[in-house]
Amino acid sequence: MGNLGQEVEIMLDWIANFAKDSTGGVTRLLYSKEWLNTQQGLESKMKELEFDKVYYDEVGNVFGRLEGSSFKNETILTGSHVDTVKNGGIYDGQYGIVAGILALKYLKEKYGQPLRNIEVVSMAEEEGSRFPYVFLGVKNIFNMIEKEDLIGKTDTEGIKFECAMRKSGFRFKTDDDPKRQDIKAFIEAHIEQGNVLELEKKDIGVVSSIVGQRRFIFELSGQSNHAGTTPMKYRKDTLYTSSLIISNIVGKARKYSDPLVATVGKIDITPNTSNVVPGKTIFTLDVRHTNKGILKEFTDMICEDSKKIAKENDVEIDINMWMDEDPVPMDEKIVNVLKEQCNKENVNYKIMHSGAGHDSQIMAQFVPTAMIFVPSKDGISHSPLEYTETKHLEEGVNLLINSLYELAYK
Amino acid sequence: MGNLGQEVEIMLDWIANFAKDSTGGVTRLLYSKEWLNTQQGLESKMKELEFDKVYYDEVGNVFGRLEGSSFKNETILTGSHVDTVKNGGIYDGQYGIVAGILALKYLKEKYGQPLRNIEVVSMAEEEGSRFPYVFLGVKNIFNMIEKEDLIGKTDTEGIKFECAMRKSGFRFKTDDDPKRQDIKAFIEAHIEQGNVLELEKKDIGVVSSIVGQRRFIFELSGQSNHAGTTPMKYRKDTLYTSSLIISNIVGKARKYSDPLVATVGKIDITPNTSNVVPGKTIFTLDVRHTNKGILKEFTDMICEDSKKIAKENDVEIDINMWMDEDPVPMDEKIVNVLKEQCNKENVNYKIMHSGAGHDSQIMAQFVPTAMIFVPSKDGISHSPLEYTETKHLEEGVNLLINSLYELAYK
Repeated sequence: MGNLGQEVEIMLDWIANFAKDSTGGVTRLLYSKEWLNTQQGLESKMKELEFDKVYYDEVGNVFGRLEGSSFKNETILTGSHVDTVKNGGIYDGQYGIVAGILALKYLKEKYGQPLRNIEVVSMAEEEGSRFPYVFLGVKNIFNMIEKEDLIGKTDTEGIKFECAMRKSGFRFKTDDDPKRQDIKAFIEAHIEQGNVLELEKKDIGVVSSIVGQRRFIFELSGQSNHAGTTPMKYRKDTLYTSSLIISNIVGKARKYSDPLVATVGKIDITPNTSNVVPGKTIFTLDVRHTNKGILKEFTDMICEDSKKIAKENDVEIDINMWMDEDPVPMDEKIVNVLKEQCNKENVNYKIMHSGAGHDSQIMAQFVPTAMIFVPSKDGISHSPLEYTETKHLEEGVNLLINSLYELAYK
Repeated sequence: MGNLGQEVEIMLDWIANFAKDSTGGVTRLLYSKEWLNTQQGLESKMKELEFDKVYYDEVGNVFGRLEGSSFKNETILTGSHVDTVKNGGIYDGQYGIVAGILALKYLKEKYGQPLRNIEVVSMAEEEGSRFPYVFLGVKNIFNMIEKEDLIGKTDTEGIKFECAMRKSGFRFKTDDDPKRQDIKAFIEAHIEQGNVLELEKKDIGVVSSIVGQRRFIFELSGQSNHAGTTPMKYRKDTLYTSSLIISNIVGKARKYSDPLVATVGKIDITPNTSNVVPGKTIFTLDVRHTNKGILKEFTDMICEDSKKIAKENDVEIDINMWMDEDPVPMDEKIVNVLKEQCNKENVNYKIMHSGAGHDSQIMAQFVPTAMIFVPSKDGISHSPLEYTETKHLEEGVNLLINSLYELAYK
């Protein structure tokens, strides 16, 4: 298995080449020409590898399958999403597909037919980069798509979702299309998209849960005044008040123990002129934790604090929570399979949570699910600068092979 | 003098009409058609009022003069600037010119020839709204203009300063042009541009000093990271660090006694995306005080604080002070003349500083100078919404008349 790392890299480059953009990054938006070429390329590749069955579902997820000999109604699934953000890298999503295809190839070569079916899926969409809708691929597998949420939605060029889908040759499920009942486990390999593994010098992350998220928009209204002629006591300064609120929120988040994270990533002030007191400030807040209770407790507390600070500074505040997603625990049994394989092979791993969203968080609502993380250099993702070392790419695929073997051949 | 307030309003409207813009505001940029029409209109008006002499200087300041009978080399000057910001109001600058013209008209009618010359000036430029240069008018009076600072400078349409000036019929001074030596006092009437008089229910402000200003750009560099996958302890969050710095600066400014003001009016962060930790934050700081020592002490202190806060948060900081203007005290003798006249007439006045810059701060470097403020409704200026009540317009002119009488007739 010595050249497996190189094999992964060759296949990642090959997939990337279907959708290289002018800056050297990868741009593969749902139902674009690049997207369709990639799915068809993967289809051909899996046929060439003589998987027992290669097929598309309604929305364009493409599956490759090794048939099981004994448990014909039980499928162990792996894979990830094929779409990228605009000007993304060659690893995000794509690594999980490559890892899956190479795992199936290797298992078939070395062990022949499994007891249970094994499938790898290249899912149509996860990022929401073209249309304002996320997790399209995995949602279709479990009949979770409501047509009404998609019909009429347009991309930045005004193209409607249903037109783009139809043009690529795909369609919505109808009531006659069955929901998959045969999937008994899902393992997704993915880059970490953070810098924890790198900083803690770990080669593999075994994901035990995916964080819940609450996202807010804070809007503060005060009064725009001349910076020279308005004494401090007569001001209603929304940026000063926001700076008190932001330093309180982030300061408290720093004192909370991991895995709580709180980020103010976007701020816009009016009129944004150096000699005018800002009369309006709008900023975002993104808070994540693996425990729903703590997430609620923390955000409730800082919302109360913020209202108090605004009142003390004679500034009006409006706090709008527009996203409230629960944390998703991974399946204990599958996590244990991954851990045992790591221990057996002396892998330098870490049990960790995922701070980013993944197809696995939808999958986990229907089937026992877990994830394998490989390190991201400098924590970078969604950028042409994404990079994972060859040896880590290889270790991730090895762990996937061993774990699929445990689940499908025993 | 009962209709003086109305007379002021009529003349303000008349001047505004030379330069009304499409929104109903006034836009009178240096050497524009509107500007030239206004100066020529004022020239005609002063000739019509039979002032003894009406004349332009080299750059286009227009003066109206009552000749003194005894002290022919001593001139008491009043007036202000005729130019406006883009989409300004009818009061800023213009009120000082109207007040001066009406004061001369009234003094001539009631008291005849003064002992000293009295002049009113409509100064060409103060705001810097067309070319990146301020105080052109007053600087020309004292031969302070360096041609090199202006030649080649362009407006937003690419028109060069010297072309615009020549087209209006004006020119730079040469070495042969004398510096004015005859001006013995200057009084400028102006709207407050703040809300202190209004909030403290005062009718008149007697300005005792103009603040010094220090302006800074703070640039903080950290690391842009994924908001979900980067634990708090591994972040270099420049917006959080900036919020600590801003709340420290403004918080301390609030605790300092008046007249210290500190304003962060502009902030820009990168990448300014809700789910990314901001890797770069740039914000401005504007600090003003009437005492140079306190201004230095405060800004030195908060710069030290800011560097310490940045270091504690593992963020790099660069602080650039790009403006350092000293405070300018008004002349005690002229301030006393204004005070005495207020007391004599039972004016409800306040001795105050100016937080904004004015022609008087240049004038005061050469001649004894003071200012009269009238209240600005809601503190608004540089906007079509500028407004000063009729009775306040009248009280300002009355005080100017009485003070000019004291200085020129005794």
